[in-house]
Amino acid sequence: MEQNELKTHVGKRKRYKRKNLLTSPGTLTYIGPEVEMKTKVRRIRYNENGVSNELVKSLKECLPAQNGEKVTTWLDVDGIHETGLIEKLGQLYHLHPLLLEDVVNTEHKPKLEFYDAGYLFITLKMLHVESSSPICISPEHVSFVLGTDYLLSFQEELTNDIFSPVLTRLEASAGKTRRHGPDYLLFALLDIVIDNYFIVLEQLGDALDKTEDEVISRADDFSLKDLYALKRELTVARRLIWPVRDMINQLIREDNTMLSKDIIPYYRDLYDHVMQVIDTIDSYRELVASLVDVHLSTISNRMNSVMKTLTIFSAVFMPLTFIVGVYGMNFDNMPELHSRYGYFYVWGVMAVVTVALILYFKSKKWM
Amino acid sequence: MEQNELKTHVGKRKRYKRKNLLTSPGTLTYIGPEVEMKTKVRRIRYNENGVSNELVKSLKECLPAQNGEKVTTWLDVDGIHETGLIEKLGQLYHLHPLLLEDVVNTEHKPKLEFYDAGYLFITLKMLHVESSSPICISPEHVSFVLGTDYLLSFQEELTNDIFSPVLTRLEASAGKTRRHGPDYLLFALLDIVIDNYFIVLEQLGDALDKTEDEVISRADDFSLKDLYALKRELTVARRLIWPVRDMINQLIREDNTMLSKDIIPYYRDLYDHVMQVIDTIDSYRELVASLVDVHLSTISNRMNSVMKTLTIFSAVFMPLTFIVGVYGMNFDNMPELHSRYGYFYVWGVMAVVTVALILYFKSKKWM
Amino acid sequence: MEQNELKTHVGKRKRYKRKNLLTSPGTLTYIGPEVEMKTKVRRIRYNENGVSNELVKSLKECLPAQNGEKVTTWLDVDGIHETGLIEKLGQLYHLHPLLLEDVVNTEHKPKLEFYDAGYLFITLKMLHVESSSPICISPEHVSFVLGTDYLLSFQEELTNDIFSPVLTRLEASAGKTRRHGPDYLLFALLDIVIDNYFIVLEQLGDALDKTEDEVISRADDFSLKDLYALKRELTVARRLIWPVRDMINQLIREDNTMLSKDIIPYYRDLYDHVMQVIDTIDSYRELVASLVDVHLSTISNRMNSVMKTLTIFSAVFMPLTFIVGVYGMNFDNMPELHSRYGYFYVWGVMAVVTVALILYFKSKKWM
Amino acid sequence: MEQNELKTHVGKRKRYKRKNLLTSPGTLTYIGPEVEMKTKVRRIRYNENGVSNELVKSLKECLPAQNGEKVTTWLDVDGIHETGLIEKLGQLYHLHPLLLEDVVNTEHKPKLEFYDAGYLFITLKMLHVESSSPICISPEHVSFVLGTDYLLSFQEELTNDIFSPVLTRLEASAGKTRRHGPDYLLFALLDIVIDNYFIVLEQLGDALDKTEDEVISRADDFSLKDLYALKRELTVARRLIWPVRDMINQLIREDNTMLSKDIIPYYRDLYDHVMQVIDTIDSYRELVASLVDVHLSTISNRMNSVMKTLTIFSAVFMPLTFIVGVYGMNFDNMPELHSRYGYFYVWGVMAVVTVALILYFKSKKWM
Amino acid sequence: MEQNELKTHVGKRKRYKRKNLLTSPGTLTYIGPEVEMKTKVRRIRYNENGVSNELVKSLKECLPAQNGEKVTTWLDVDGIHETGLIEKLGQLYHLHPLLLEDVVNTEHKPKLEFYDAGYLFITLKMLHVESSSPICISPEHVSFVLGTDYLLSFQEELTNDIFSPVLTRLEASAGKTRRHGPDYLLFALLDIVIDNYFIVLEQLGDALDKTEDEVISRADDFSLKDLYALKRELTVARRLIWPVRDMINQLIREDNTMLSKDIIPYYRDLYDHVMQVIDTIDSYRELVASLVDVHLSTISNRMNSVMKTLTIFSAVFMPLTFIVGVYGMNFDNMPELHSRYGYFYVWGVMAVVTVALILYFKSKKWM
Repeated sequence: MEQNELKTHVGKRKRYKRKNLLTSPGTLTYIGPEVEMKTKVRRIRYNENGVSNELVKSLKECLPAQNGEKVTTWLDVDGIHETGLIEKLGQLYHLHPLLLEDVVNTEHKPKLEFYDAGYLFITLKMLHVESSSPICISPEHVSFVLGTDYLLSFQEELTNDIFSPVLTRLEASAGKTRRHGPDYLLFALLDIVIDNYFIVLEQLGDALDKTEDEVISRADDFSLKDLYALKRELTVARRLIWPVRDMINQLIREDNTMLSKDIIPYYRDLYDHVMQVIDTIDSYRELVASLVDVHLSTISNRMNSVMKTLTIFSAVFMPLTFIVGVYGMNFDNMPELHSRYGYFYVWGVMAVVTVALILYFKSKKWM
Repeated sequence: MEQNELKTHVGKRKRYKRKNLLTSPGTLTYIGPEVEMKTKVRRIRYNENGVSNELVKSLKECLPAQNGEKVTTWLDVDGIHETGLIEKLGQLYHLHPLLLEDVVNTEHKPKLEFYDAGYLFITLKMLHVESSSPICISPEHVSFVLGTDYLLSFQEELTNDIFSPVLTRLEASAGKTRRHGPDYLLFALLDIVIDNYFIVLEQLGDALDKTEDEVISRADDFSLKDLYALKRELTVARRLIWPVRDMINQLIREDNTMLSKDIIPYYRDLYDHVMQVIDTIDSYRELVASLVDVHLSTISNRMNSVMKTLTIFSAVFMPLTFIVGVYGMNFDNMPELHSRYGYFYVWGVMAVVTVALILYFKSKKWM
Repeated sequence: MEQNELKTHVGKRKRYKRKNLLTSPGTLTYIGPEVEMKTKVRRIRYNENGVSNELVKSLKECLPAQNGEKVTTWLDVDGIHETGLIEKLGQLYHLHPLLLEDVVNTEHKPKLEFYDAGYLFITLKMLHVESSSPICISPEHVSFVLGTDYLLSFQEELTNDIFSPVLTRLEASAGKTRRHGPDYLLFALLDIVIDNYFIVLEQLGDALDKTEDEVISRADDFSLKDLYALKRELTVARRLIWPVRDMINQLIREDNTMLSKDIIPYYRDLYDHVMQVIDTIDSYRELVASLVDVHLSTISNRMNSVMKTLTIFSAVFMPLTFIVGVYGMNFDNMPELHSRYGYFYVWGVMAVVTVALILYFKSKKWM
Repeated sequence: MEQNELKTHVGKRKRYKRKNLLTSPGTLTYIGPEVEMKTKVRRIRYNENGVSNELVKSLKECLPAQNGEKVTTWLDVDGIHETGLIEKLGQLYHLHPLLLEDVVNTEHKPKLEFYDAGYLFITLKMLHVESSSPICISPEHVSFVLGTDYLLSFQEELTNDIFSPVLTRLEASAGKTRRHGPDYLLFALLDIVIDNYFIVLEQLGDALDKTEDEVISRADDFSLKDLYALKRELTVARRLIWPVRDMINQLIREDNTMLSKDIIPYYRDLYDHVMQVIDTIDSYRELVASLVDVHLSTISNRMNSVMKTLTIFSAVFMPLTFIVGVYGMNFDNMPELHSRYGYFYVWGVMAVVTVALILYFKSKKWM
Repeated sequence: MEQNELKTHVGKRKRYKRKNLLTSPGTLTYIGPEVEMKTKVRRIRYNENGVSNELVKSLKECLPAQNGEKVTTWLDVDGIHETGLIEKLGQLYHLHPLLLEDVVNTEHKPKLEFYDAGYLFITLKMLHVESSSPICISPEHVSFVLGTDYLLSFQEELTNDIFSPVLTRLEASAGKTRRHGPDYLLFALLDIVIDNYFIVLEQLGDALDKTEDEVISRADDFSLKDLYALKRELTVARRLIWPVRDMINQLIREDNTMLSKDIIPYYRDLYDHVMQVIDTIDSYRELVASLVDVHLSTISNRMNSVMKTLTIFSAVFMPLTFIVGVYGMNFDNMPELHSRYGYFYVWGVMAVVTVALILYFKSKKWM
């Protein structure tokens, strides 16, 4: 069963589903697991004065508001397997076909891309802890398109509405989120994704604690496999989070007109958080490496102690067995055999030999 | 046989066939395996209005179209061992002799070079999986020369026409490929080479899976050699693919007039794909490293368990053998021998000793 | 108990207390250990002519002096758990809410941030040695806000007034500190924090010495765990001190108007000191790595010596036991048994065998 | 003998012969091995119209041609131990004394230096394979001074005229070399040095092959020393070749007037070759590292198999020996001894014990 | 005793003597070993026309010459423990107090600092070999202040006048040194310090040779401790020399008016020398790493050979002992015992068993 787990890891996460070579570039191909439910598109419109929130029924409703008033439109798309829908949405917003390809390519690494047409594209991973023993992290493909007065968000999973806290805050009061445009909204959503990394970290930390206990208490039959499974999860997490750092850094430094100046400090804060996540992952990785060494050194100490036991037993009993063997010989002429106290002398000799050997091993600190 | 494989690897891939030191630089020297078939040159001409596709019979047919109309000429050369032909072709297109030297030098690393005369040169490797057990990747030397209205492509192998899907697409309809010039054609061909890396990755992943199973199920007689063979293939693949990344990056950033602006996003997409390939290779390499450690730790655990078995057997039977040895002595005066139940007492003593030792080992968790 | 220590380390230092996901960004959340005492705010005002020093009772007293005269105001805040107080103080000085969030976030890494409003923010860690066996370093979160005529300092801990030497110097005489503005004061306080690193280093050095002795004198039952605990402390220290280096470097190079030109050499000196701390930590880390190797090699040498003892005992006594076994057989027809000196001959043979084996092992340098 | 080799390596290559501390800087000191033969200076003059080639007898003949016509003078100096001669030559060409110091300092690393007076200085290493088993690379110190109409080349060794192929080409026909100036000549000579690296690589590859065979076929008594000797040669080669890469790169990029524009592609080609050499060395180094691991894992597997054999023998024969010991006891009252088939029953019991143990070890996959 | 050495290393070199935290920054604190002798100040004045050289008796004599004529003043200060004297000298030359702090801080790393007032400060380490077995390098703190017409040099040690060769050269003739200003003098002094590194290297090389011999000839009782002691010295040397490289590089590149243009090539030569020192140290470090691996592999091979011996002895004698045990049993009915040649048959059986086992082990290449 453990083999299967190990294989599943590779199979589930690392493999890239190959596109048909005949497909022309720019063709949308969804390569994630098959999904039965229908994509859900929610349209939220808000400004300081109010919020509207409705499930979209026809594509026409998806366009940004164009009635002069300053209104932010947030289109939250749950599900990226209906490539036809994504494609139409892209045409509605005049998005580049390659951008749409990245929205549905669940294997794509986190990245940020600026488009000349006046929008930017962000894709990154939401992390979920699939199972806890052995711990397994599964990434969810999340993408954003930020325009001047709209934000499109795409989530791979249908059932788990991760952005609802922001929606709640939007509807609750005319707070900071409603006072700002889509750039602050993007920050709020990214903040949720990154805060979620801390939750995953906590569970990785718990798993690490458990494994740590086992390294020490079950030194004998503990297998490095568990430690390496943990290490692999940490590596996966690091690989998926690391590019987010560059992404946010680029967002801050770039002379782009997408982020207003008073929003920048919030993104800088986000950057600090990502750095903290990466830092913690790195310290976990170091701990795993130390545990591997501690485990190997424990194994080695044990082996040493087993060998010493064997050596002491052999070294004590071999001479004794030899001695009794001598007097088991059947020679006609063995004077000692006929001495009155020969038998007891032999016991004496054996006692002396035993004590001498034990003292010798004590002097060598083997006992 | 395994030795031979190992040697073959070095022999086949790493060795550089030395040029004659007396050869003046710029002399074309084909250093790949000997080939008997004749080079095949195919000339494709297309624009939005139509496509022509014919096997070239004389060198004169190879020149780009010069009848005013905007036509893209694609010259697909299969086979690079006829250096004379390559040389003449080079003169026809006024190519630098050192460029031609790189076209036929199958050991050359992937690189991109801009020439002042208004063309650019790209060479990279198509990867093929030669054999699957043990897996062995063999690179094919592929080169491109991109001019303003022509594209030359050179393939090392004659039998395997890797670019046929693009040809099929070209002939099928007046799609994207025919609407654009040779820069888009170059992209389409590079896309095929890079998509092919994913197929190779998949087979490497299968081989990794298989080896992984063996590390765990056949821990005892598993040899690291298999893992290192796999690691070497990964290293080779990485070494051949890594420069492709720089190459494409340079193509995008360079202020060159060879790529039209609306083609750039396609090359950026290509860059992302190469990064993904490298990323996967790196994660495979980490997995191999982990498997090495898991294997060594398994070996060490086994050794420990063997040693414990030996120690327990020795520690139990040595005292018993000593005891029975004692009563095998032939002393005249050994009172116990004549006691009525002496024999049975000795059995009792031995049972006690055995139980005590077993409890002792249990307390040490050796059993 | 050792397990608990190990776990405590992770638990106490590495874990990040997760914010409530519903909390809107910019909300101050104190995540350090719970504190019962009240925050203490001390206001010091000084210039060349005099010093005033009083515990603040109401927030109004906290404002910088505004009576024309050039006076530096130093507000020393002991305790950062009363987020309400910190928030009000921030409003008084018009500080950015995200800055305040970092003041109370005890998990934040050292950093420097310039704010457009004309102040800069520094946060770093004061290091304390919590316990000495096993050594455990605990960081204290310390922050500074430097304005043109004021300096705010925030300390996490209430009981340990680390800045008192500067206060003493300020009150003692109209020395360098009083002649300069808040930029020199900031230097003086940073100098104390960094000098303190040397004290921590000294204790780490002592712990290293002790462990070093144990590696050599108690090679047998020494466990790598102690070395790794030490290594972890060094890693923690390095991680917390390393960003301080960048921070000070940035302070020096930046074209900021916060530091007057004649103060810069003092900061450059600070930079040298931090470099020296990092250097020493690195050399300690190398020493730990060497000790691990020395330990493993010692273990291995011991194992070798145990094995040799076992082999010599077995190789000497096995043949002897065989020989005496031969003459313990009960065959009717065994001529040697009846020879007059058979028994003594056998002793002779055994002596020869023993001497031969001993010479053999001596020739192999096993004895 | 192997010890001596190892020492010789250090002694011969790594040691720097110390200059007398009282020597003022700029004093020429030859520190290579002592040489008895006289320095040989050959003067070649050529342009498109003709070539002259003569051994120089007096220093006056060494000056460049100054009769108006465009003629390239190549002065090939074989032997650098006659520092007086080198010094006079330097004065003749107005070379900086420190440049001359580097010409004779056989320990100097490859470097390129531009001098304001309008010449550039290059020093690098020709590599020779001294002995092949164990392989030992010995570097030859080679230097060039490139002026506008002359090239000086200095070789450490007298007997081995490595540049003769160029001379042959020069004299054979008015080819590329004669059409260009001294910058192309420098290229041609550097090309010979670098082509020679491939020959050395080939021999290193052969040595690697041989060692690889031994790792696998003679696993038992194979010593890591051979692998490390090979690794050291690779390291030496890498250290001497690596700076050549930077050197050529600098030659290409520098805005210097020494190289004419149409020569640059040739130097770029040289750069590619050096990269290929370094790449191959790196792949050899990785292979050596893998072989070390394979060797250690083989050793470990063998040990395991030895231990299992020992354990099986002990575990089978210890109980049997105990059983026969029991019935060797001399108690008066041992009922079994007098049973008619007791002896045969005992054989039966021992057969059962043996079979049981063998099945047990089979179930553990030890047999 | 070995323990003490190890501790002494850490104690003597790595520990930083903590300053009193109450000390205000810029206070001179000498932290080196206590010295009883008095500081010696020597004043040398020279130009092309002549040299004066005298021990200074009062501070007034220390000022640079101010009688119009161009004269270079070199003030050579032996001993830096009299901080009062250093302080007064600093005031005389208007040096920054923090510079003086670095002059007396014997723990300070090599560095170069430019001061706006028109002088530059250099501090670096002279290396001495304290003891040769085990080798121990001890650094001497050396500093220079270079002004337009003066050079101050400070040496930690009083007894060892390392700069005397330069003094000798100055007084001997009106050579290069006297023709140039203090910038060339600085070069000459730095050259002595760096030439001295080669002497230290030579001794490290000798120690490495000796250890290398021991690794191979005394494999059994060789301890890694010696190798690690050597490695530590190499690390210390590297750490102290590495910044010198940056320092000289900075001196060359900086657009500073302190070095005249024709002196620069001399400093570039110095740079090459430092690089050579670092290179040699790196190659020594690699050699140490290889020796560690060779040692561990030797140990492992030995263990293997010990185990094989044990296994062969056990496997041969256990069956034999069992056989003779069988015929030592006392059953009434044991037909073989009464056969006439039973005893000799048994010997035959045992011979066959022995030969069979020996052939088996030979087939496994254990013998």
